[in-house]
Amino acid sequence: MINLPQDQKIWVPWMRRAIQLALLGEGRTSPNPLVGAIVLDSSERLVGEGFHSGAGNAHAEIEALAEAGEKSVGGTIVVTLEPCCHEGLTPPCTEALIKAGLKKVVVGMVDPDPRVSGKGISRLKDSGLEVIEGVLNKECEGINREFIFRIRNGRPWGILKWAMSLDGRIGLQNGCSKWITNVPARDSVHQIRSKCDAVIVGGGTVRADNPLLTSRGKSTLEPLRVVFSKSLNLPKFAKLWDTKIAKTLIAYGPEGDEAFFSDLQDGPEKLRLNSNDPSELLKSLANKGCNKILWECGPLLATSAIADDCVQELVVFVAPKLLGGKSAMSPLNSFGFESIDSTYKLQHSFLDRKGHDLCWRLLL
Amino acid sequence: MINLPQDQKIWVPWMRRAIQLALLGEGRTSPNPLVGAIVLDSSERLVGEGFHSGAGNAHAEIEALAEAGEKSVGGTIVVTLEPCCHEGLTPPCTEALIKAGLKKVVVGMVDPDPRVSGKGISRLKDSGLEVIEGVLNKECEGINREFIFRIRNGRPWGILKWAMSLDGRIGLQNGCSKWITNVPARDSVHQIRSKCDAVIVGGGTVRADNPLLTSRGKSTLEPLRVVFSKSLNLPKFAKLWDTKIAKTLIAYGPEGDEAFFSDLQDGPEKLRLNSNDPSELLKSLANKGCNKILWECGPLLATSAIADDCVQELVVFVAPKLLGGKSAMSPLNSFGFESIDSTYKLQHSFLDRKGHDLCWRLLL
Repeated sequence: MINLPQDQKIWVPWMRRAIQLALLGEGRTSPNPLVGAIVLDSSERLVGEGFHSGAGNAHAEIEALAEAGEKSVGGTIVVTLEPCCHEGLTPPCTEALIKAGLKKVVVGMVDPDPRVSGKGISRLKDSGLEVIEGVLNKECEGINREFIFRIRNGRPWGILKWAMSLDGRIGLQNGCSKWITNVPARDSVHQIRSKCDAVIVGGGTVRADNPLLTSRGKSTLEPLRVVFSKSLNLPKFAKLWDTKIAKTLIAYGPEGDEAFFSDLQDGPEKLRLNSNDPSELLKSLANKGCNKILWECGPLLATSAIADDCVQELVVFVAPKLLGGKSAMSPLNSFGFESIDSTYKLQHSFLDRKGHDLCWRLLL
Repeated sequence: MINLPQDQKIWVPWMRRAIQLALLGEGRTSPNPLVGAIVLDSSERLVGEGFHSGAGNAHAEIEALAEAGEKSVGGTIVVTLEPCCHEGLTPPCTEALIKAGLKKVVVGMVDPDPRVSGKGISRLKDSGLEVIEGVLNKECEGINREFIFRIRNGRPWGILKWAMSLDGRIGLQNGCSKWITNVPARDSVHQIRSKCDAVIVGGGTVRADNPLLTSRGKSTLEPLRVVFSKSLNLPKFAKLWDTKIAKTLIAYGPEGDEAFFSDLQDGPEKLRLNSNDPSELLKSLANKGCNKILWECGPLLATSAIADDCVQELVVFVAPKLLGGKSAMSPLNSFGFESIDSTYKLQHSFLDRKGHDLCWRLLL
C-alpha cells in the first residue's frame, strides 16, 4: 500500500469500506470467498454498496451496481477481489461491469481461482476500462486466507482447538472435563464455530461427551458436524444423530463396520473414505465446499491431524485451574520427537483473556 | 487512602517516595521486611532519604535521619513500616526518632512482628510525637506480602515455577527439556530467583538437569540453593555441590541414606528433617530467615508442595511449541480429584509476553 503511486492512494479509504462490507458475509460464503464492493459515480460520490452473502446469491459487484442504478455510468467500482469472468452459479461479473458503463475498476487482489486468475482483469482492460490493481492487497488477501489456502492446497484451512487447565490437562483421570473453562471462553468457541464450515470430532469424543457442536445460534448457517471414525464403534443415540438443528456427516475408514448404520435413524450423511488419514477427510470436505474447518477432537485424532498437515492454526484456552492427572488427559499424544529443536514451533497470532481464561491463537 | 482525612492526603506523595526507596532493597533484606523512609524539615522540605539494605545494616529511618542531620529537628519522618522499639541486630529506631527531635511520624503500616506490633507507635505517642497511621496502607503491605505471610504462618511465601509447551509438556519422552522457553523467559527466571531467599529442587531435578540455580549475577546475594531429597540418592558430582558461587543446603527426610555424605566434598550444608513433608522443610527455611522461596522442582515434589499448602503463587511459562509425550513430562502429578469443582482455582495476577513465550503469574 505504501508503495502505491500517489494518485492511487485516494482509493485506500474506499477499499477499506469494501473490506468492511466483505466481512459481513463471514462464515456464510463458502466455497466462495468474502467479497465487498462500492460504486462511485462520475463525480466520485458513493452511490452503491454490496457484499457477497452466500454461494448462489448475487456477487458483491452486482449488489453494489443494483443500488447505484444509472449513476454508475462513467463511474468507478472498488472491489476487494478481481471480478469473475466465468459462468458459475451466477453470470460473470465482468460483463455486468462493462454493461453498467463504468470507467474505472479498482481491485484489491487477483482471484486465485484458476477459472479467473487475471482473466477477469484482462477482459475489463480489453473492453477499455481502466483497472487499478493491488490497493490494500495484503488486507484483501487477509480476509480470504482460508479460501486462498483451499484453492492452493485442495483442502480447507484447519483450526485445532482445545481447552486445558494451567497444568496442561484437558480432563480429570475419570474423564470429567465439564467445565474446565468458563462461560466467556465457551461462548468464544461457539463464535469460532459460527465462522467455520465444518466441525470435526472423533468417535471417542462422541462416546465421552455427546456434544452438540453448534454455534448456539451465533450463525444462521450452522457448520457441518463431522464425526470421523475408523471403526464406526459409535453410540446408537447421540445428539449429533438429530439433524434438525444442523447437518451431520459420519466419515469412516475402510475398516468401518457399516452394520452400525442399520440401527441409525435417518438424518446423518455417510461418507466412506479410502483411508483413515485426516487429509483424506479434508479433501472430501474441500470438495463439499469447505474453506475452513475446526478440529474439536481428542488427543489421538488431534495428533494425527497435526502430523498429517491438516492444522494451520491453533486456538488454545488455558483456565487458571490445576487438575493433575494422567497422560490420556493431555491435549496431544506422542509425536516421537527426540529433541526440542525438532518439535513444532508456532507463531503468535492473538492473545486475549476470556473471563478468567486465556485464549491464545497461533499459526502452525 | 481515599478515606484519609483531607489534611493527611498531603503525605501520600511522600509515602510513595518512601515505597520507591524501600523497593531498592528487594531480595536482600530477609528475614527483615523492605522499609523506606524520608525526613522533612520543619518547613516540610525533603532533607533525608533511606532504605533498609539488608539484615544487620542500618534501618531505613536511621539512614534517612543520618542524611538529614540537625535539619530533622521539628520535622517529620514518613516511613513505610512502624518503627521498631526492640533491640535486634541494631538498636530500636523509636529512640533514634525521639532523640532526633522529630515532631511528626507518618507510618504506612503497623509491623506485624509480635515484638513490635503497635508498641513502636505507642512509644512514639507516649513521647509526645504526633503519629499519623495508615497512609498508603495497602501499598505498604503489598511490598511486604511475603514478610507478612512468614510472620503470620511461620513459613515463607512459596512460588512454584514451571515452563511448559503449548500442549502442557515440561519435557520430551526421553527427558530432554533444553530449552522449551527462549532466552527472555529464562532471563526472567533468573530475575525471579534474585528476589527469592531460597530455590528448591528435588533429587530428580539434580539427577536429570544438574542445574546451577543462581540468579546469574542478577543479585549480589544469591539465593540459598536447596536440594530436598527423601533418599539422598544423589549424584556424587553436581554443580550444586560447588558452593563458591552460592550456598547449598541438602535437606533430607528420616529415610535419607547419610552414607551419601561420606563421598561429598565440603561445602553444602546438611539438614535432617523429621518428615518428608514440604511444610517441614519450609518451617526450617523460615527459621533460617527466608521470607520467599521458589520451587523449581519436578511434578512429584511440585504436587506435594501444592497439596501441603506450600505454594501461594504460580509462575507458568508457556512456549509456543508442541512436544507431545507421556504423563511424567507434565508439570503436575495426580491430586486424585473426582470433579472439576474440587480442583484448585487460581487468581490472575499478571500476564506478560517474554519474547515468544507467555508468562502467567497467579495466586493460589
